[in-house]
Amino acid sequence: MKDMLDIIKKNIGLEEDEEKEEQETIIVPEHSFYEIILMKAKNLDEFDFALNQIAEEKNPIIMDMSLLERESLEDFKIAGEKLKAFRINTGGEAILLSKNSNILIITPPEIKLIRK
Amino acid sequence: MKDMLDIIKKNIGLEEDEEKEEQETIIVPEHSFYEIILMKAKNLDEFDFALNQIAEEKNPIIMDMSLLERESLEDFKIAGEKLKAFRINTGGEAILLSKNSNILIITPPEIKLIRK
Repeated sequence: MKDMLDIIKKNIGLEEDEEKEEQETIIVPEHSFYEIILMKAKNLDEFDFALNQIAEEKNPIIMDMSLLERESLEDFKIAGEKLKAFRINTGGEAILLSKNSNILIITPPEIKLIRK
Repeated sequence: MKDMLDIIKKNIGLEEDEEKEEQETIIVPEHSFYEIILMKAKNLDEFDFALNQIAEEKNPIIMDMSLLERESLEDFKIAGEKLKAFRINTGGEAILLSKNSNILIITPPEIKLIRK
């Protein structure tokens, strides 16, 4: 029956309409299920790698910075500057979750943080 | 031209095929860009409401429980039991982010928490 319809369509010149229908096909994004990464930054290299991952993979990271602060206050300050640059350059966000602990949530611009 | 095709289809009994095509249409979820909610639970009602929101809206919540613990240790314990039930019933996750602060991340089963 389908073949018959195709022949009829072809004969009455409906190929264009059919093409239009195909163009309207909706492509579903590859990962509608996403991940949130939990990590401790041990040094500045790990911190840099994580920031790049957020921008590339579009996954948010919850990052414990207390180890980095303990290891090197200098590196901890540099990380703070890099976070500022990340926010300005990408439009992402970085928020301290608690004053008692150095835990941040860092998100790409695609993910909105809503304070309630 | 479309009307003409419809008439032809009807005449050769192709309505069933058409219905089948419609069923194959892919529905794109309403928000591919998602939100992470940051909140302080002030009482058990707010806590319950938030848990329901996670299950319904599929958005993760980062919840500060310190206020609830301070206000009523009894309610705080009940919240703990409800979190346990939430994990078992929905397959979602609830993780304490730091021992120093009572901040949890609670996620629906669609969102995976990856510890690195």
